[in-house]
Amino acid sequence: MSLLVVGSIALDSVETPFGKADDALGGSATYFATSASHYGPVELVGVVGDDFPVQRLDQLRERGVNLDGLERMHGESFRWRGRYRHDLNVAETLETRLGVFSHFRPKIPAQFRRAKYVFLGNIDPRLQLDVLDQVENPDLVACDTMNFWIESRRSDLLRLLGRVHLITLNDAEARQLSEEANLVKAARWILRHGPSTVIIKKGEHGAFMFHAGRVFFAPAYPLDSVFDPTGAGDSFAGGFMGYLARTGDLGEANMRRAVVAGSVMGSFVVEGFSIARLLDLTSDDIARRTAEFRQLVAFDAEIA
Amino acid sequence: MSLLVVGSIALDSVETPFGKADDALGGSATYFATSASHYGPVELVGVVGDDFPVQRLDQLRERGVNLDGLERMHGESFRWRGRYRHDLNVAETLETRLGVFSHFRPKIPAQFRRAKYVFLGNIDPRLQLDVLDQVENPDLVACDTMNFWIESRRSDLLRLLGRVHLITLNDAEARQLSEEANLVKAARWILRHGPSTVIIKKGEHGAFMFHAGRVFFAPAYPLDSVFDPTGAGDSFAGGFMGYLARTGDLGEANMRRAVVAGSVMGSFVVEGFSIARLLDLTSDDIARRTAEFRQLVAFDAEIA
Repeated sequence: MSLLVVGSIALDSVETPFGKADDALGGSATYFATSASHYGPVELVGVVGDDFPVQRLDQLRERGVNLDGLERMHGESFRWRGRYRHDLNVAETLETRLGVFSHFRPKIPAQFRRAKYVFLGNIDPRLQLDVLDQVENPDLVACDTMNFWIESRRSDLLRLLGRVHLITLNDAEARQLSEEANLVKAARWILRHGPSTVIIKKGEHGAFMFHAGRVFFAPAYPLDSVFDPTGAGDSFAGGFMGYLARTGDLGEANMRRAVVAGSVMGSFVVEGFSIARLLDLTSDDIARRTAEFRQLVAFDAEIA
Repeated sequence: MSLLVVGSIALDSVETPFGKADDALGGSATYFATSASHYGPVELVGVVGDDFPVQRLDQLRERGVNLDGLERMHGESFRWRGRYRHDLNVAETLETRLGVFSHFRPKIPAQFRRAKYVFLGNIDPRLQLDVLDQVENPDLVACDTMNFWIESRRSDLLRLLGRVHLITLNDAEARQLSEEANLVKAARWILRHGPSTVIIKKGEHGAFMFHAGRVFFAPAYPLDSVFDPTGAGDSFAGGFMGYLARTGDLGEANMRRAVVAGSVMGSFVVEGFSIARLLDLTSDDIARRTAEFRQLVAFDAEIA
């Protein structure tokens, strides 16, 4: 089924203990779409400035990402500069230049409005609400958010919560939004405010899905070298939503498989800078790591 | 099969955001033995001072813990005073008074020397080595350790590593011991130095077992109220070793089930101060949480 993502497209300059990259492709929509493209076609809506090397997005187009919703505006592209030190779970933002992104008003092309699966990447909740006014009857709407919006747009974010089926956010954001230190209580608080599913991402410590009165947990696959953690959360969301859109099954068992698909995609993206690893990934690679993932958590009769 | 633990018996004074306890039963051997007693008999070797309210240990004796190896020495008992604030994963030590523990030389009673499963709680590695000289041909020797010994007794600890089958330690200790920031690399380093199994405990973020070229991960069961995290690691070890001693099977599949048994026991102990929750636990409680745990990580065909 059709999958639409609205989010940022950025040029990231990232430094990790293992190297650095300048003006690499980044942004929530970029990571999400590249990840989800391994499961089926993706429709992308976003904005870039007139300085943006758009030919670099051909890599996404070749993977089945429909860029008809890409807007070019006069001005600078969104740029993020960040650094990871010893603790790869913590990004240190050195500079954020919103550029054209600060004037972005997402316009969903007519042919995208009937998307059945919609992911609202981490942008102003007012814009996320705008998108919802433009789509017709989706089966699943999911959103992401961040500390900045929780602080500055709390009431809009609460309105958004009432209109989405699912939210993904990290543990610190879940605590901040709910004002509950305990993650189980934080998840319950969020569930009371609208969504029927909450996914709390804990970075290298895995992800919880709270759904239908039950909890599912998937660890992050343990890697012996994490190169650049940028985009792990959006790649997780891309794998999760891509898997659901491909299978078209929102039952709990399938949602759990989707979390695993998301964890697998998150485990790949951190092995390289930007979306490099997502681009060179084969379906064999994905199948192999999914099997390893199953082995990682299997116990009892399951174990060979 | 017989299970022996050598470790500390302490009086803990603990403050958490939810309350405080003074001179509560604590120490690695206390938590370990009480937890393991749910799976079978336990033999305990430890020391207390002449100020110790020994009648409180009757609760352990009633649960099948053999206290013939309990030594009473002239002097003060081991006391620990600590505090947990908002982040329950981090204990702040306010005071440690070793008392008689600083003169402790474990003497394994003759009837304990043929124990098939031996757990060397977190004490001076020289004493852990002493214990190994007193036991005859155990099937499995496991040890725990801490930052203090890694710093001050590194060469003894390395000798110990060469003589144990398994080590449990937390993520920070694994990094400190191996000088590797990445946990997969840290585990490989430790495996190269002796043990065939390494269990890295990440507190509320679960535990990894590295064994036979494979990795198993078990999350910590998500609780909506964690009362006091003290003793979680030793209760985990007690459940793990108790399960192995009961089943007498050191195959990988059973080791994985033992990690789950350990996680379940760790999830109970933090629900109350000291060993209170471990004492009032029934086998039904354990079976119920084990089923919940299975549900927590189950995906694919496993899901009902």
